[in-house]
Amino acid sequence: MIDQNFIDRLFSLDKRTVSRAITIVETGDERSRELLKSIAHRTGNAYRIGITGPPGAGKSTLTNQLTKYFRKQNKTVAIIAVDPTSPFTGGALLGDRVRMTEIGMDPGVFIRSMATRGSLGGLSKRTIDAADILDAAGYDYILFETVGVGQSELDIARTADTTMVVLVPESGDSIQAMKAGLMEIADLFVMNKSDRPGADNAIISLQTSLMMRSHDETSWLPSIVKSIATSNTGIDSIIQAINNHQAYLLNQNILQKKRELNSKIRIKEIVETQIREELWSRAREVSLNNSLEKVVLGHLSPYHIAEELINNYKSEFE
Amino acid sequence: MIDQNFIDRLFSLDKRTVSRAITIVETGDERSRELLKSIAHRTGNAYRIGITGPPGAGKSTLTNQLTKYFRKQNKTVAIIAVDPTSPFTGGALLGDRVRMTEIGMDPGVFIRSMATRGSLGGLSKRTIDAADILDAAGYDYILFETVGVGQSELDIARTADTTMVVLVPESGDSIQAMKAGLMEIADLFVMNKSDRPGADNAIISLQTSLMMRSHDETSWLPSIVKSIATSNTGIDSIIQAINNHQAYLLNQNILQKKRELNSKIRIKEIVETQIREELWSRAREVSLNNSLEKVVLGHLSPYHIAEELINNYKSEFE
Repeated sequence: MIDQNFIDRLFSLDKRTVSRAITIVETGDERSRELLKSIAHRTGNAYRIGITGPPGAGKSTLTNQLTKYFRKQNKTVAIIAVDPTSPFTGGALLGDRVRMTEIGMDPGVFIRSMATRGSLGGLSKRTIDAADILDAAGYDYILFETVGVGQSELDIARTADTTMVVLVPESGDSIQAMKAGLMEIADLFVMNKSDRPGADNAIISLQTSLMMRSHDETSWLPSIVKSIATSNTGIDSIIQAINNHQAYLLNQNILQKKRELNSKIRIKEIVETQIREELWSRAREVSLNNSLEKVVLGHLSPYHIAEELINNYKSEFE
Repeated sequence: MIDQNFIDRLFSLDKRTVSRAITIVETGDERSRELLKSIAHRTGNAYRIGITGPPGAGKSTLTNQLTKYFRKQNKTVAIIAVDPTSPFTGGALLGDRVRMTEIGMDPGVFIRSMATRGSLGGLSKRTIDAADILDAAGYDYILFETVGVGQSELDIARTADTTMVVLVPESGDSIQAMKAGLMEIADLFVMNKSDRPGADNAIISLQTSLMMRSHDETSWLPSIVKSIATSNTGIDSIIQAINNHQAYLLNQNILQKKRELNSKIRIKEIVETQIREELWSRAREVSLNNSLEKVVLGHLSPYHIAEELINNYKSEFE
């Protein structure tokens, strides 16, 4: 169903074909699998950078500036903007109209927004599948941009080679709650809008938190870089910090090990998703629904119903 | 293995037996299933209240005050303090030493802390299993207390009949990011420490957010109640708001429907957890680990490996 012509155009970085390939991957169906299997041998060359942080920290502007920098080095760039909408309400896509006029016309830049639509696991799967398409197509850098307010930044950290957490002076205290999570995933902190009051204090507070974490001599200590993305200040320092982290990963084969761990999580998710889909067939959903009243009234234990469903599923393979 | 004597002592609200039963349930093994199946017929009578909110909002103090109130009405109370430690770092248990001296000696009050230890799904499962034990034992109220900073408050909302979100005036803006999630699960907001500056503004801001949400005439509009837990101010209003919500649920059988939905999620989780455990046998873990290098180097597609693992699992039931 996926013809060689299509694959060839993909490998020649034809943006329309890349876009169509990602649309196929977003469906997650049989054709998506076929496509992903047929491009696997071309993956592994792109460098993947995750960019996360609280809303309003300037992630999009920074992503654009980094993209322009990479383009000046003659590197091609693909951006995946992940929109972690509430699992309940849905929500708007990250605004990327400004971005489109600024860098979207460049043939060496590919931009795609992906919404979660309530499926957290699904976000991770589709994003990583899309990254493989972009990797195989030949983009040198893949930038994942996501708001760090929940699960999505963890998913991104499991996909990215370097994860960059963007903060602003004001976010120092207010993101106390999410800070622990961001601390764990950050390979690099960017204190954006660093001309605002409190920037230096925020950096000191961040440094203190970082020093308090347990780490041995061989583990990576995230660097903290100042920037003012809107005036293109500090971009060189960010690039330098990314390069330092990349050098650290390439030394001692850490990048390979990191990617192996990420692949492991990914394969497990693929396996579990398929099993789960088979498990919750229409017939078993109905059977479950019909038992619920009895469970709530205490006539049957949830564990009793669970055992029946499991036995029914397994009997399909007898 | 579970003898009738043990069950009898459990049903007579013997605190030591209740405690041992929860310890059994925490292991999640075969004995835990046996116990839960043998007490199912006594569940469904306790009223379950979730208490969540940002760190420092005063959840523990409020929980204690509510407990004292219920005790004065001659109702028995069980408290489950859920500790959502970071999935990466582990962490300390919620402090409940103060609580123990205040209400822990009361024979009509049972208190238990449960840590997540990194397993988010597992938290939900063990907490709900424990709640069933407490329900069957005969406690009138079960209070779940958890910090609202991620997944744990969603788990609690799926377990509780009434979910109470505790805020303080200062948390108004700073929890912007998590607010959307808390908005969705709250049946009742408590603005604690309401003698602090900004309390009224925070309430107006909250009301505005609530009104902006789409809702039809029949859906529940969360009430907002002021309190100063440390001086026992506003507890009556909170109780009134809980009673109002309970009356709403009991009218038109909404409580039954809500519990059926929660049971459905719970049974699915039980089924999926067991299947997952069987799926990731030692042998298949090793097989997966051995394939990772080839995947990262692009020699094999993750989807190829996933298919092999699935076929291997299913062949066990042939």
